[in-house]
Parts: sequence; structure tokens; C-alpha cells
Amino acid sequence: MQPIPLHGIIAYPVTPFLADASGIDEPTFRSVLQALLETDPAAIAILGSAGESAYLRNDEWRRAVELGVEATGSVPLIVGISELTTDAAIAKVRFAEAAGADRLMVIPISYWKLDPDEIYGHFQAIAAATSLPIMVYNNPATSGVDMSPALMVRMVREIDGVDLIKESSGDISRMHAIHEMSGGTIPFYNGANHLALEALAAGAAGWCTAAPNLLGKAPAQLFDYVSAGNLEQARPLFYRLLPILRFIVQGGLPTTVKAGLRLKGLEAGDPRLPLRPLAGERLEELHKLLLSQ
Amino acid sequence: MQPIPLHGIIAYPVTPFLADASGIDEPTFRSVLQALLETDPAAIAILGSAGESAYLRNDEWRRAVELGVEATGSVPLIVGISELTTDAAIAKVRFAEAAGADRLMVIPISYWKLDPDEIYGHFQAIAAATSLPIMVYNNPATSGVDMSPALMVRMVREIDGVDLIKESSGDISRMHAIHEMSGGTIPFYNGANHLALEALAAGAAGWCTAAPNLLGKAPAQLFDYVSAGNLEQARPLFYRLLPILRFIVQGGLPTTVKAGLRLKGLEAGDPRLPLRPLAGERLEELHKLLLSQ
Amino acid sequence: MQPIPLHGIIAYPVTPFLADASGIDEPTFRSVLQALLETDPAAIAILGSAGESAYLRNDEWRRAVELGVEATGSVPLIVGISELTTDAAIAKVRFAEAAGADRLMVIPISYWKLDPDEIYGHFQAIAAATSLPIMVYNNPATSGVDMSPALMVRMVREIDGVDLIKESSGDISRMHAIHEMSGGTIPFYNGANHLALEALAAGAAGWCTAAPNLLGKAPAQLFDYVSAGNLEQARPLFYRLLPILRFIVQGGLPTTVKAGLRLKGLEAGDPRLPLRPLAGERLEELHKLLLSQ
Amino acid sequence: MQPIPLHGIIAYPVTPFLADASGIDEPTFRSVLQALLETDPAAIAILGSAGESAYLRNDEWRRAVELGVEATGSVPLIVGISELTTDAAIAKVRFAEAAGADRLMVIPISYWKLDPDEIYGHFQAIAAATSLPIMVYNNPATSGVDMSPALMVRMVREIDGVDLIKESSGDISRMHAIHEMSGGTIPFYNGANHLALEALAAGAAGWCTAAPNLLGKAPAQLFDYVSAGNLEQARPLFYRLLPILRFIVQGGLPTTVKAGLRLKGLEAGDPRLPLRPLAGERLEELHKLLLSQ
Repeated sequence: MQPIPLHGIIAYPVTPFLADASGIDEPTFRSVLQALLETDPAAIAILGSAGESAYLRNDEWRRAVELGVEATGSVPLIVGISELTTDAAIAKVRFAEAAGADRLMVIPISYWKLDPDEIYGHFQAIAAATSLPIMVYNNPATSGVDMSPALMVRMVREIDGVDLIKESSGDISRMHAIHEMSGGTIPFYNGANHLALEALAAGAAGWCTAAPNLLGKAPAQLFDYVSAGNLEQARPLFYRLLPILRFIVQGGLPTTVKAGLRLKGLEAGDPRLPLRPLAGERLEELHKLLLSQ
Repeated sequence: MQPIPLHGIIAYPVTPFLADASGIDEPTFRSVLQALLETDPAAIAILGSAGESAYLRNDEWRRAVELGVEATGSVPLIVGISELTTDAAIAKVRFAEAAGADRLMVIPISYWKLDPDEIYGHFQAIAAATSLPIMVYNNPATSGVDMSPALMVRMVREIDGVDLIKESSGDISRMHAIHEMSGGTIPFYNGANHLALEALAAGAAGWCTAAPNLLGKAPAQLFDYVSAGNLEQARPLFYRLLPILRFIVQGGLPTTVKAGLRLKGLEAGDPRLPLRPLAGERLEELHKLLLSQ
Repeated sequence: MQPIPLHGIIAYPVTPFLADASGIDEPTFRSVLQALLETDPAAIAILGSAGESAYLRNDEWRRAVELGVEATGSVPLIVGISELTTDAAIAKVRFAEAAGADRLMVIPISYWKLDPDEIYGHFQAIAAATSLPIMVYNNPATSGVDMSPALMVRMVREIDGVDLIKESSGDISRMHAIHEMSGGTIPFYNGANHLALEALAAGAAGWCTAAPNLLGKAPAQLFDYVSAGNLEQARPLFYRLLPILRFIVQGGLPTTVKAGLRLKGLEAGDPRLPLRPLAGERLEELHKLLLSQ
Repeated sequence: MQPIPLHGIIAYPVTPFLADASGIDEPTFRSVLQALLETDPAAIAILGSAGESAYLRNDEWRRAVELGVEATGSVPLIVGISELTTDAAIAKVRFAEAAGADRLMVIPISYWKLDPDEIYGHFQAIAAATSLPIMVYNNPATSGVDMSPALMVRMVREIDGVDLIKESSGDISRMHAIHEMSGGTIPFYNGANHLALEALAAGAAGWCTAAPNLLGKAPAQLFDYVSAGNLEQARPLFYRLLPILRFIVQGGLPTTVKAGLRLKGLEAGDPRLPLRPLAGERLEELHKLLLSQ
């Protein structure tokens, strides 16, 4: 068994836009990345769900990769791939590898439902097109594709280059299944913020989260407490963070994290239409939650 | 109250691809459209769910619009718009209008969930960018967005240019709600093939379907029987068609309809990866279903 | 193929309680039954979901059977059996047969989920204990047991005495499946009030409903219109009834029908605790709905 | 804040039946209870879901209470109350109190859905009829009633005598909500066996489980490990127990636990019809799982 490649917090930046929404706000993206690097992450993952990957034009997406590579030399850089067609995914994978990314996180997305063979083929074709290691990312609520633990474990075993699993379905039993099916040998990461404590208790190798954008080192602290078996301190910390974790999950990460950054004084623009910026009572609620930290 | 703009079958072509998947097979697309025109449709709707709209490159999408306009002069041409961002939707809407389309069918799709205001804003911005009439298309299983009857009725009432509703959720109660909320004044169309008989009984103005690709005039015949109150003939016809209707819904329209066309001797290529062509037992099942018609 | 035993409306009375809730109000029960007989039913079914069968003490249940037999000589009397254990169900079946019932309607209920073999065994044991014909009743929302069309069709075919199916899941596709699996030979009845029009269009042999308590002959009229292929009159009648049908389904039949009878001047008592009588805004809503008929 | 009344494992016996199913096997029930007392429980809870409470005749139920009181003097005895009507629940509550029970666990069950006021009234009436403390028990999968955390917390706060919550929905977020809404002052117990590790990590005061019937002191050991922050030992123990925990949940507790006791040499009879004893491949699977402990 190899050592676990990543252990701890994998931090997800938003992708800041210019005020007129015409493109990426590059200096602010650098600031967002720099701030995340100071939250003790095991890795940085750009262009994930929080990064509005699916909403970017192709030129923007490529520029974001370049900016990510420039900014994150001190920890591994993961690039998210969420494309409807296999061809489009491979084109992005190749760009990311050439640009200097360290690893890929691939989520299959659907208009028409995919059967397990179609999903397997998607990962197989992508893995054949790159030498970068690949994290399988399951997030049915956003992608419309729900991969069973059995399928994900099979892909890690059989497809060269696929080695990690990120589970964001929010079903702890799936983490159990991954652990059991792999005899504990396949590292899995929790992407469901509101279950962070329990997923770590269940043995997750890490926590994939955009929360450090707003909560700084607190997620890394929670990880360390649980790693040390210090539930007496982990539990109150988790319950302190929980209202914000729940808020950013329920309100959509780009919408809520960009609003939170603005409240903290970092102007990262609005999410892209049809997504709307947080406003009114919801914005006030977030303001209060941040003040209570 | 204005006359119902479309009454009967709205027929949906697949988009045929070349054998090497590099682009649209233009002569075959013309053949598919020509064959649909002979099935007594009230309109033809290209680039819908069955047309793999979401899987096309931008250049392909535009070419498909041009081919559709050329081929369908005798009945209205509807163009489907399914884009994640409002800007991308508007760009396609403008192209379709300039190319000569008669009407749009707009389905909001999601990565991050959209709230009612975001959906409303999406339709409002699109309607403001075109003079073409717009059919609101609800299909949560493919799009990830579920619009309530109340929201759709409100958009028809308040947004100039939005005038029809296509309901594909498969919940007959929503058709009841549209009828009740609008006092029967807003025409609604059924997009759930497996409930065609019941939706027409409930008062649907028409049936949006890719079934005529495989079943010819039979869907139009079913519509006529129900319109005439001839349930004695409508019912056995519906139960004869039902196994195929259910099959194409469950297997994904592009996958199953392309397979069916191939079985009928029209080579329309494969669906685009990661979608795979129908094969093995499932293909044989479709073969038997077609032979039994 | 035998003639369909029942064709039309199967009407369900509530079970009136005395003002102090200590037992059945016998004269009022007779009045309720007499009023139902004047609504042109094909049969009367006592002690169903609407009849609070599950909430009665054993002595009350038996007395209700006797009262039903006395009152309904002109049409067949069906007695509902909803017991958790097979032994308790058989005891009631035997009582109903001895008292003079014409037919049974059996719904398996669950605390622990039942697998298909357990359900099959339940019906087999009951059928072996009686010579009365049995209608299989599926209503997962109240009973916690969901029988597939395949299981129900198999029981009708294999178990002597089981001959009809009542489907109350509200899923029209299950009615399709019963029709297809049985080649149209097994009569099925719709128990989902809010889909009455569509179920009849799909070929239901009848409609099992408590609506005649409040709506008199209108349900029978709807049945006749659809039977005659007269959708032009069936549709507006259905949409006129629909708000009340939906209301009584959503609010719970005993609660809403007893409230409606009270509004119409027939005091049938309250439902049994923990069920509460309809009150406040909901009661006013029902009042308005009844006035609008 | 008062001290938590119960801290640790609350153990649930099955109710053994005679071989001819005619009644309770009293000596075996005593043996089952005695064996549970040796598994280090904080309390014993008879006549719960595992105890087939809902399937017992009234005379059997009363006898089971008497047997429980006799056998469990060393730890508190909890009696489960699961009745459809409030009157029937109160009659049992009074019997249990008179017989010497220490505490009640009340689950509202439904045929017709209950609204929050109806549930509240049910608990209020029961609490007014007894001086025993009451644990609110939420288990929507078996009871058909789903109580929100907000409702349960409100009842603990407002109804004198209602003081604890058992959550068996399997949704960890509800445990978070109870903790948050009560500021950590209301003890909650986990009834979802397959999430035992995570619920304890989240702060559950205990674990309500029938697992000690088959797993002896292992559940108490897991509780102690997590209490001590010893996740390094808790995790492998939990993963060792998990296949059995999952098996007994999925197969129904009375069915699987009685089968397991038989495999271990204690003949506790079969569950009551329509429930069937475990047999065939499933029985072998359980056998292997028990041997692997």
C-alpha cells in the first residue's frame, strides 16, 4: 500500500469575476489563492464546483489554470474537470497537464443519464490521455450523475491513474462502503461540508471544502483535532462552524462564498447569470454568521 | 383569448453524426427531418433533448439551426435552447432568430440549483433579446431544474413573448395545476411519452415527442382519437405504442432513437461520448418492439 | 374471460362516532350508508381507509360490519381488512363472511417492511380462510407496504379467490403495467381521487372513492361520461371536482369527509385521536369548496 | 442543566414466541433479558421495534411488561409504546407504570398522516396520564410518522415529563439540529445502528440497539472507545461490527435477531406472521457474519 497522497484539507477557491462580468478578475484570483495557502491546506483545487468551472468560457477556464499554477507552488494544485462530453473533458485535461497542474479531479456530468459503462468509459478515456493522477468526484446534486461506491472502487482498482475518491453525496454509508470494499486501502475525501466531523470520524483522509475562504484555518484545526482523537475539542469547534457550513452548502458555494468574501472586504464579483448575488435577508444572515465566528 | 398556436404533435428529430463523430451528418439530418414532416406534426422542434443539443459544439449547433430552417418550411420550426449561462443562451437565441426559426423552446439547466428569481431572470433576459415566442420547458430529470406550475404560469402571464408550457416531469397533477391556475387559457404540452394518453385526456394541447422518428403517424393518430373522444380506439393504440414509448424514455432518447433508426435502415450515427450506442440485449429488445408494431 | 364483477363507483362511507367518542353512532352510520346508496354506486365498501378501520376497537369493527350488511342489500357490500398480523386479519375475514359481506378488500399494513413472499403468504392464508372474493388493495402512503404491479397480478393469477386490484399509489404507470401484464384481463380500480379522469381514460374498471359522501352523484356522472367517450363533458366536470378531491386526499379522508358532512348538516362526529377535527382556515377552505359546487 | 439520565447503550430484547406462535415463551424471554444485562447496558428497553410490540395481542403485551419488570432490577427498564390511537396508548402507559416500569419510549404511528399539532397532542395526553419520564422516539421508516427536530425539541421543552429524544431516521443532520436547537442540553440517542460511530462522534448520549443480543459487549465497548476519544480503536471495531449492524437493519430486527439467536443456540421462536423467519441464503449470510466476529 502506498502512502496517502493528500492528508488534510483540500481548499477550493471561487473564481472572481470583473465587475462587468466580462472575465476573470486576475489580481483578485491571485489574492484568493494566496489567502487559501495561508489556511494550512494539503492541496488547492481550482475550477471545482465552488470555482464555477461549468460557467466559464473556454478561454477563461484556461486562464484560470495558468493563474492557479503560478500561484500555488508550495502545495499540490488540483484542477477540476466537469464536462458533458468526453472529448471536451480530454481537451481540458491536456491543457491542464501542459500548464503544470499536479492532479485532476474529474466529475462526470449529465444531461442524459449515464450508465456505469458510460461513466467507466469516460474515466478510462480521460486517464489514457494524461499522466496526471485522477480523483473521482461524486456529487449527484450538482452533476446529475450518481456513482455508486462499487463503481468508484472498481475504477480506482482497474484504471491506471485513478487513485482517490471524493464523496459529496452526503451519505456516510457510502464512505463506509468505500472503506469496506477496499479494505481501507483507497483514500476517500469528504465533500459534504455539513458532515465534516462524522466523515473524519469514519476515516476520511481529508475534507474537500471551500470553507477556508471564509473560515481560515478552522477547518484544518478540526481535521487536526479529529486526527488526534480529540473529540472534546473537535465537537464544539464543529458545532461552531456548522451554521456557516450549512449556509454555504444550501445557498450554493459560488453565491455564498463570494458574498462572504465581499463581507470580509475582498471584492470577488458576483456569480455568473443566471446565478444571482446573495442579497437581502440571506446576506444579513451570512453577515451575522460570520460575525459570530 | 388567442387561438392555441400549436395543436397536435410536436416532433423532435435526433441530430445525426458522421461515422467518425467529427460533426453533423447533414444529408441524414435532412432525411430525418423530411421523414418527420410526413408524420403529420403540428411543428418540428430541433435541438431539444432528443437532439443532443447540450452535446454539440457551438459551430455544430448553429449549422443544425440552418439545416432545420431549410428543411421545415411547411410547419413551424421550434429551436431548443439549453444553456447553463444566460449569456450563452442569448447568443444562441439571437442566432436562431436571425436564421429564421419560428419559435423557441427554452429549458434552464443547472449545475448550482436555481431559485425561482434566478429562473425568472433567465427567461426575462432571453425574452428581451428576441421577438420570437417562447415555450417554457420543464424537464427536471435531464436539466436538474424543476419549475413549479406556479412559476411557469407566472412567467407566461408576466413576461412578454413567453406563451406556452411544455411539462415533462411526468406528474399529471402539474398539468392539472397549470390548467387550474390559468383557467384553461395557457396551452400546455406533454413531454412525458409514457403518459401520452392521460395527458391528452387531461387537456394537453399537444404532445412533444421523438416517437414519430420510429412510429411514424401513430402518435398523430392517437392525438386525433383522443381529440374526437374516441377512447375505444385511443386506448388500444396507446397500449400498443406504450412498450416503445417506455423504452425510449428509459434508455435515453438519443441513444434509443438512433438505434431504432439504424434498425429501420437509416444510419444516423451514434450518440456522442460518454453516451454509448445501444447494444446487446437492449438492442434486441428494441428490435423486437419495433417488429411488433 | 369473466365479466367484470364491478363497474363504476365503489363508494366509501366514513364511520361516524358518538359525540363523546365512546363508540359508533349507529343511526348516523345508517344515514351515511343510505345517502351513499343514492349516489349510483356499483358497490359500497365499509371499513376502508376513509372508515377509520385501523382506529376501531374490535367490538366497534364487528358492529360496523353488521350495520353495513343490514343497510346495503341493493348493491354488493365490500368489507375492508387492514391488520398487521395475519391471524388478526383472518379473524376479521371470518366475522365478515359470517355476517353476510359480499366481498373483501385486503390491504397489508406494516411496521416492519414485508417482502413479496410475506405479502403473498398473507393473502394466501386469508384467501384460504374464506370463500369471499378478494380485492388486493395497494396504498403505500397509508399502509407502509408497496406492492408492485407484478406481485399483485401474480396473486390474482395464482391465489384462488383473489380477483381484483385497487391501486391507490397515484402512479398511472402502475395501472398501465397491470393492464399490460394481464393482457387487459384483470380489472383494476383507481383509488387516487386526484387522478380519477386519467385512470378512467387508462382503462380503470372503476373508481374507489369517499367523494360521493360530499359530491353525491357527480363521481358516477364522471364515470359515465368517460365510459361514453364524452371527454368534452368529462373534463370540465373533473376540473370542477378536482379542488375538493385534492383537498380530501391531502387532509386525510376521515378528517375532511367528516368535516364536510358536518358542513352539509350531517353530524358524524370527529375522527379518533390523535386525529383532530378540521378547524380554522382549513375548515373555511372546505366550506368554500363545497359552496362552489 | 440536569445530569443525563442515561449514558451508554440502551439494549433492546426481542420478544420470544412459543413454537406454535400462540404466545410469549416466558423462560426464553427471561434468558434474553438476562443475557442483555450482561452486555453492560445503561438501560433495557422492552417492547420496542425489535420487540414486535405492534404485533402482540394486548394480553401478551401486558405479560411482557411484567416479565421485563421482574428481570431488570439492576438497570432502568424502559417500555415502548406504539399505538395508533391516543386512548390505546394511554391504556398501555398506565399499565406499564402500575407494573413498575422506570421510563417510557413513545413512538406515534400512523395510518393517516399526523400533523405536528396532532403529534403534540398525542404526547401531551400521554404525559398527562403518567408520572414516568418519556423518551420521544422518531422512526419514520417503521412508524410512518416523521417528527422534525424542531417539533421534538419543542415537546421536550414544553411538555412536562418528556425529556429525551431517540432519533432513528438515519439522518445525522437531525442530531446536529437537536444539539443546536437545545444548546446541547437535550440528550439525544441514536437508533440507526449503521451510523453508530458517527452519531457518537456527533455527541449522542447513547445508542439504542438490539445488537447486544448478537454482539454482546461490543456495542458498549464502541461507546467507551468514542467516549475516551479513542478513534484509533473505535474505528476498526465499528467496521468489524458494521456488516452485522447493516444486516439486522436491512432485514428487520425481529426477523434477523431471532435468526441470530437461533444460530447462537438460543431458540426464541419465529417472528409473527406475516413476518417470516430468515431462511436460505440470507440465513447463511448471517451465519457467516456471526462466525467472523
